[in-house]
Amino acid sequence: MQQIVCPLALHMKVAVPDLHSFCVEALTKVGVSSDDSRKTADVLVTTDTWGTFTHGTKALRGYVRRLQGGGVKRGGKPMVVAEGPAWSIVDGDSSLGMVTSVFAMRTAMAKAKTAGIAYVGVRNNCHYGAAGYYASMAITESMIGFSMANDIPTVNAPGAEGPVMGSNPFAFAAPAGKEKPIMLDMATSTVAGGKVFAAAALGKTIPGHWLLDAQARATMDPTLFPNAASLTPLGGYKGYGLACMIETLAAVLTGASISWQVLSWSFGDASKATGHGAAFVALNIESFMPVAQFKKRMDHLIREIHSAPKAAGSERIYLPGEIEFERREKALTEGIDLPEDVVANLRGLAHDLDLDLGRVLK
Amino acid sequence: MQQIVCPLALHMKVAVPDLHSFCVEALTKVGVSSDDSRKTADVLVTTDTWGTFTHGTKALRGYVRRLQGGGVKRGGKPMVVAEGPAWSIVDGDSSLGMVTSVFAMRTAMAKAKTAGIAYVGVRNNCHYGAAGYYASMAITESMIGFSMANDIPTVNAPGAEGPVMGSNPFAFAAPAGKEKPIMLDMATSTVAGGKVFAAAALGKTIPGHWLLDAQARATMDPTLFPNAASLTPLGGYKGYGLACMIETLAAVLTGASISWQVLSWSFGDASKATGHGAAFVALNIESFMPVAQFKKRMDHLIREIHSAPKAAGSERIYLPGEIEFERREKALTEGIDLPEDVVANLRGLAHDLDLDLGRVLK
Repeated sequence: MQQIVCPLALHMKVAVPDLHSFCVEALTKVGVSSDDSRKTADVLVTTDTWGTFTHGTKALRGYVRRLQGGGVKRGGKPMVVAEGPAWSIVDGDSSLGMVTSVFAMRTAMAKAKTAGIAYVGVRNNCHYGAAGYYASMAITESMIGFSMANDIPTVNAPGAEGPVMGSNPFAFAAPAGKEKPIMLDMATSTVAGGKVFAAAALGKTIPGHWLLDAQARATMDPTLFPNAASLTPLGGYKGYGLACMIETLAAVLTGASISWQVLSWSFGDASKATGHGAAFVALNIESFMPVAQFKKRMDHLIREIHSAPKAAGSERIYLPGEIEFERREKALTEGIDLPEDVVANLRGLAHDLDLDLGRVLK
Repeated sequence: MQQIVCPLALHMKVAVPDLHSFCVEALTKVGVSSDDSRKTADVLVTTDTWGTFTHGTKALRGYVRRLQGGGVKRGGKPMVVAEGPAWSIVDGDSSLGMVTSVFAMRTAMAKAKTAGIAYVGVRNNCHYGAAGYYASMAITESMIGFSMANDIPTVNAPGAEGPVMGSNPFAFAAPAGKEKPIMLDMATSTVAGGKVFAAAALGKTIPGHWLLDAQARATMDPTLFPNAASLTPLGGYKGYGLACMIETLAAVLTGASISWQVLSWSFGDASKATGHGAAFVALNIESFMPVAQFKKRMDHLIREIHSAPKAAGSERIYLPGEIEFERREKALTEGIDLPEDVVANLRGLAHDLDLDLGRVLK
């Protein structure tokens, strides 16, 4: 991320509640209910507080275009269409990905409460933003959470010339006791496509191991993506294999669109549903051991890692999610430093909808 | 793997049934029941048929040492010690990792049959070999399988000087229709420690991104591992994060030993239990959609990947596990070409137990 952070002068500091209310205003203006608007704003603004700017409010302009085009239904209602003791299949009714995904994760947690573990598969979803948001919903419920989703292919596989799999994100979160909870949120490509787009928007080059050109040769030119380049899979066959696993759980098993059947949420026809799939899993800690005991054991693991000897030049060993949670604490008191590409998208959105961004970006 | 394959002349061709009966003979000779011996031999020999020689019969000599030392109980009986509608906790009673893990995966599948999904956590396990074996047990039951385990730290984390996490393996398997099933079996380090040991045994150097020396600098010398080197995590924070996830599911939640509490199965005191944890998950496809429909959808995904344009110099794009399943088909008809380091360990085992390896290695 460091390489694509723009000069400080181009950052815009925003207060978290102001950014949130701007998102709600934009969504309600295009006909989304205030409840669904708030849910969506929560996901996007929380993501920005983590510093995961590729998947936060930057994407709202694109979602609004799909709402205006009808590909995302402003009054869509996610529904459980099949269920058992420890699972549900949810049809997202092509509503906002955040609305359906929050519904699905809540459904998983409700089932896990009695069954111990639950899986919820989703079809007719749209792009759901940061996978970590849904996984981390489990933390305050003393549960362990997982979230994953498929997407249109943008990622190479060993032996392929172009894209074969989506960058299929995966997230995991678990609570701890006196230590911070842990959260992993990752694309199964070396980096998420959003980082390449961000570099292109900022006129930067990218590291040589992120992208392959149309002949599957390494390239540092982010502007080739996605039309004439594919992302590299994380660690070769491993990231590719994890993407296949996610495609299986989020699409093959749920009835969602598979691989190339998915429509691009950012480039595809805004009047058509994208057909994304997703999957959510919750484990109810209390079913397995007293929550206090689990938390104590998590703290033990975390403290062991924190206290391990540091490499030369390193002051800390971070747990997964620790940087994001620290950024969030800071953002809640000091505001968020939005990078230039995010500000540009928010300005564009304000222009599209004739909204006043000035009171947010002071 | 290619880099550490030894010259052909040093390979030994063995028939699969012969290798299997040798393993059973060795295990029964040290007091393991014939049923448990057969289960263990199935896991190890299947792993060799896949060409995953780092985790197959090569390890049997080490397991036998632990059986003789008492750290692995020859008459141990894995038991369900707690359970709910969609989960169990299994105490492995420090029996062979293969015996406990097969029991645990079967328990997960039995629960998933009615609940749709099930999680089984294991404590008091030992090293369980190839994670993929247990995940792939789901295939013939028309289920999706997962397996994972923790281990003593051997893997670096961003910012650490030495090892912080185990190479915590993860596996996933799912059936297909007319196409081969898919199976992912991976360490969360760049490569499993076994590949480094194999290179050291064969006197080879290793690629520069596998290992860090005691000062966290890249090294190509496999002999430094594990005492003065740590494995690199897969893709930096992502592999490290996945290892933390596995530690949570396989150890924190199960009551198993966590991280440095685990004893090395290969170097630790053979009279003491290693305390490994593991976790298994099964999803019963039939709960979600007709199995035939699922298989047709898997075939669609697989064929789409197979038919994607190939990179220059590439003839095929393999699905996860496809290479292993093709190797197995060949091994079942033509025998297995055991690499030198595996043969050396089998010879050592035959010597230890006064068994005749000659009739196996013709």
